[in-house]
Amino acid sequence: MALSPELLDIAKRVNNWGRWGSDDEIGTLNLITDDVVRAAAATVRSGRRVPLAVPLSQQGIQTGMIPGRVNPLRTMVALNWEMFGPETVATSDDTVTMGLQAGTHWDALTHVSHTGRIYNGRPADTITAHGGAAFSGIDKARHIVSRGVLLDVAGARGVDRLAGGHAITPEDLEVAEEFGRVQVRAGDLVLVRTGQIQLFLAGDRHGYALPSPGLSVYTPEWFHARDVAAVANDTLTFEIFPPEIENQWLAVHALDLVEMGMLQGQNWNLEELAVACAEEGRYEFLLSAMPEPFVGATGTPVAPVAIF
Amino acid sequence: MALSPELLDIAKRVNNWGRWGSDDEIGTLNLITDDVVRAAAATVRSGRRVPLAVPLSQQGIQTGMIPGRVNPLRTMVALNWEMFGPETVATSDDTVTMGLQAGTHWDALTHVSHTGRIYNGRPADTITAHGGAAFSGIDKARHIVSRGVLLDVAGARGVDRLAGGHAITPEDLEVAEEFGRVQVRAGDLVLVRTGQIQLFLAGDRHGYALPSPGLSVYTPEWFHARDVAAVANDTLTFEIFPPEIENQWLAVHALDLVEMGMLQGQNWNLEELAVACAEEGRYEFLLSAMPEPFVGATGTPVAPVAIF
Amino acid sequence: MALSPELLDIAKRVNNWGRWGSDDEIGTLNLITDDVVRAAAATVRSGRRVPLAVPLSQQGIQTGMIPGRVNPLRTMVALNWEMFGPETVATSDDTVTMGLQAGTHWDALTHVSHTGRIYNGRPADTITAHGGAAFSGIDKARHIVSRGVLLDVAGARGVDRLAGGHAITPEDLEVAEEFGRVQVRAGDLVLVRTGQIQLFLAGDRHGYALPSPGLSVYTPEWFHARDVAAVANDTLTFEIFPPEIENQWLAVHALDLVEMGMLQGQNWNLEELAVACAEEGRYEFLLSAMPEPFVGATGTPVAPVAIF
Amino acid sequence: MALSPELLDIAKRVNNWGRWGSDDEIGTLNLITDDVVRAAAATVRSGRRVPLAVPLSQQGIQTGMIPGRVNPLRTMVALNWEMFGPETVATSDDTVTMGLQAGTHWDALTHVSHTGRIYNGRPADTITAHGGAAFSGIDKARHIVSRGVLLDVAGARGVDRLAGGHAITPEDLEVAEEFGRVQVRAGDLVLVRTGQIQLFLAGDRHGYALPSPGLSVYTPEWFHARDVAAVANDTLTFEIFPPEIENQWLAVHALDLVEMGMLQGQNWNLEELAVACAEEGRYEFLLSAMPEPFVGATGTPVAPVAIF
Repeated sequence: MALSPELLDIAKRVNNWGRWGSDDEIGTLNLITDDVVRAAAATVRSGRRVPLAVPLSQQGIQTGMIPGRVNPLRTMVALNWEMFGPETVATSDDTVTMGLQAGTHWDALTHVSHTGRIYNGRPADTITAHGGAAFSGIDKARHIVSRGVLLDVAGARGVDRLAGGHAITPEDLEVAEEFGRVQVRAGDLVLVRTGQIQLFLAGDRHGYALPSPGLSVYTPEWFHARDVAAVANDTLTFEIFPPEIENQWLAVHALDLVEMGMLQGQNWNLEELAVACAEEGRYEFLLSAMPEPFVGATGTPVAPVAIF
Repeated sequence: MALSPELLDIAKRVNNWGRWGSDDEIGTLNLITDDVVRAAAATVRSGRRVPLAVPLSQQGIQTGMIPGRVNPLRTMVALNWEMFGPETVATSDDTVTMGLQAGTHWDALTHVSHTGRIYNGRPADTITAHGGAAFSGIDKARHIVSRGVLLDVAGARGVDRLAGGHAITPEDLEVAEEFGRVQVRAGDLVLVRTGQIQLFLAGDRHGYALPSPGLSVYTPEWFHARDVAAVANDTLTFEIFPPEIENQWLAVHALDLVEMGMLQGQNWNLEELAVACAEEGRYEFLLSAMPEPFVGATGTPVAPVAIF
Repeated sequence: MALSPELLDIAKRVNNWGRWGSDDEIGTLNLITDDVVRAAAATVRSGRRVPLAVPLSQQGIQTGMIPGRVNPLRTMVALNWEMFGPETVATSDDTVTMGLQAGTHWDALTHVSHTGRIYNGRPADTITAHGGAAFSGIDKARHIVSRGVLLDVAGARGVDRLAGGHAITPEDLEVAEEFGRVQVRAGDLVLVRTGQIQLFLAGDRHGYALPSPGLSVYTPEWFHARDVAAVANDTLTFEIFPPEIENQWLAVHALDLVEMGMLQGQNWNLEELAVACAEEGRYEFLLSAMPEPFVGATGTPVAPVAIF
Repeated sequence: MALSPELLDIAKRVNNWGRWGSDDEIGTLNLITDDVVRAAAATVRSGRRVPLAVPLSQQGIQTGMIPGRVNPLRTMVALNWEMFGPETVATSDDTVTMGLQAGTHWDALTHVSHTGRIYNGRPADTITAHGGAAFSGIDKARHIVSRGVLLDVAGARGVDRLAGGHAITPEDLEVAEEFGRVQVRAGDLVLVRTGQIQLFLAGDRHGYALPSPGLSVYTPEWFHARDVAAVANDTLTFEIFPPEIENQWLAVHALDLVEMGMLQGQNWNLEELAVACAEEGRYEFLLSAMPEPFVGATGTPVAPVAIF
């Protein structure tokens, strides 16, 4: 089923097509100005670093539920190989096959389309099998460093992790702002913690996948009002799954990626980060989350790091 | 041929086995303390960001010269797929197969071994086909953020790019320090520019591969004396190739990775960075260069970013 | 440019849509009846076997000219691994990544489409990124055993290999029949030798690719008249390449695969076979050329064997 | 634990090292002479063909139990792509990543080693990560066509499928010979049916994997006495699994592959074949089971076909 009239109304309100010109391919990442980054760097006080990516291996997040999104298979193509002759220095090299969205990742703006369109009104068929995304591939999004803000919704709500059916609302986000004594502002990279990834970390990949808490269809307007640059969380699907409104599958994806032109991140491990924020007494930090520049890709693994 | 007596002497002098305990797996990355990172963040003034990775695609750096190190093959596993039924939001997903050392990458400490040993004296056969590197896999090196320093040797020597036979010496490094009015210090991530990557950027992959300027066997002692955390450059092989001393293949690799326990980076695009340093009038910056946490890997693609 | 009026006329004459029912997915393979196979087996006299596949490795046929069609990368995922404990029996396992059309292969009927149609008039968009070919995938073609006939055009024309610009005509085929004292008949698997693969075998992959002799646009009618089950040859593109008629790219593919519903094979090594036929004094044999049953695939590696 | 004294005694009795010379790499495949093949072809009477491979897809046999042995991931690299311009003939191409032993496959002789040795007494470390098997790779075994014999042990024992704990003994094999009124002889390809693959076909991949009936450690002597060329069956592990003798893991593999130099096949679908044998009233046929010639591989997918 297509988006409902209510969601189409939201779509109109959050739509950023043309806002940065008809040639634009990166959407709200335009909001990360040099000034924003300079201010973000100024938040660093202790030098503590917290990495946010899950390990990449065959024991990864994927269960086979999403066709083709395979866990990383890393293999050796050289193993202590004395390539230049006996007793020479020996090399070890490896290759990998993996789904670009298999682990901790960014969705490119082209990760979804609806009614035949991608961000900035371009036709969805500008994505092809032989070339990938001609526009808004993840390789266009190469400067993702800004202020990071943790909205620890689970913490703010006083639970270890949110229940599977919890659709995170704008109110939840504001309670988390208050909990962290932080205000989300233009150009921020917002990390929304549900605690759901604890299930994966405990070995329950199926439980992690669904049912899962996640962002409600009412959050895109909130992110739009704050002019957020990108949002990531600690779930497989980003938005609540199964969806909060029957048959409105991936509606948040459509609003964020297609209409607003705002990148989403998934499977980010925010557990150690929540501890660090509590210990440091602040929920803002410098966040570097650079995409691997896969040409034409609709997503990419990312190894984000928060710097306090 | 094994390392020569001269090189074995150097090996003894730069050896860090046991320096951070017999359990250590990350070597000189230990030198990146919170204090170092805090000071690095304090160098940020303009907020300008410069990404250093080359695009990842079939048109990548590899020529087939290094067996198994294949350029990235990215394919779509879903293409505007209405997974949930007609007219629903459609998804596009991709997978990749690639050599972990194919593009802009970090070598893990385990990327080479010599005389049967890897860093910290462990047996080389702790790397296996089924498990990868049991110790010092790249997944252990998850906090690579520090002060970056560009040593623009080409710039300091007044050339666009160094000649293929140029072995970069400690003297070259010091001339580049002077050129950049910067002093390399403990915990730094040092980027050494030769200009060689211009050949790749101009489409000459074979010319880029060799002959190539690169670091001399006399530089590890210099890096050791300065207590550098890691070094990267803009060439395929990192060290001069073919080697400066006949039959002493990959000697710099052996000294840096195995003896000193210091990570190396290759195929970093330092061209835009050199321009930025000249424009900003400083050759230091905050550098984030987080490895993708492939479990047991001997290398990883990396998307480094310099923040001014 | 679309097919020319002349070629569209040929298309009408060779068209087999509906011939084996609207549900049919295998086209001329229907012509291989049990009787045909029994007669084919009866041709076996000496028991000599000749394999026709080229080795599968990184040193394979592909040069990068055809995007994504990568040579096989085989890697070990276990290497004398004592999985069950010290001194137990040790296992070695491997994986491969490869283009299904990279080496000696069959094109499935879905390998090409024109004017939006595949074999039997189905829409071309029944092939999707997530599912492959819903109809006429190579997994549907699972019984390819029949009489093989070698039409040694190079031999019949008295040359080692045909010139790059040689478009093989019906007359060439008939001269080769005469040369081999054999008559092509219904249900046959016809192998057409040009000698072009000698270039690959001698290490000249680029010369092998093009210019290349190959089948003329006038051969489909001849194969149609004889009710051939499938045709393979010893070139990269099957048809003459570049094409004999300007801008009529892949016209033979369109006629054979889409219109006639006849499988094509490429990169078959027919050199040893030509010697065997000459020595055995007959150009017919039992041919087994079973596709690997990749579900929804538009091609497959094949390891054909001729049995004399 | 190493092989027990009893098994080492059997090893001595079935050992074929040197039997075909110290240079031999194919073991009992030497027993398939031209005469054997001619006689095999003479068994063809009806022309009926039965394919024996399971479909290759992400829904394949592997469960993740065997590390790195991944089910086939097939992806499109071109999808109705008008490579030569608008309205030209469009191409579709695919790639695959898969474990070579993931589906219906042959083990190469190098698939296992014990006490540091492979077939013909060569050192196990002649298999390397960068080169695969220098000796006895599957690419050396390129003529696998011979008489096939179905030993339908399940049928002979009057059950749909053998129980998980059933170790197939020489007596079982002889009962199956009697059941099929067939005598196994030199050069035969013997197919041993347990019925276990019904579990996979019914969707129970874990039940298929184990517990599984399979060949007993006492069968290698029987195959040796009959001078069988190769043996395949319809289970994941070939031999009974878990093993019949505690801690004697993969003992049959060691005896067949290493000592005798006899290829093994696994995951062959023998269900339709059993029906065909019963209907045709004979348990012998021409069997073509050509390996894909992966250079240095320790196994390969195979698409066998029985011709009656």
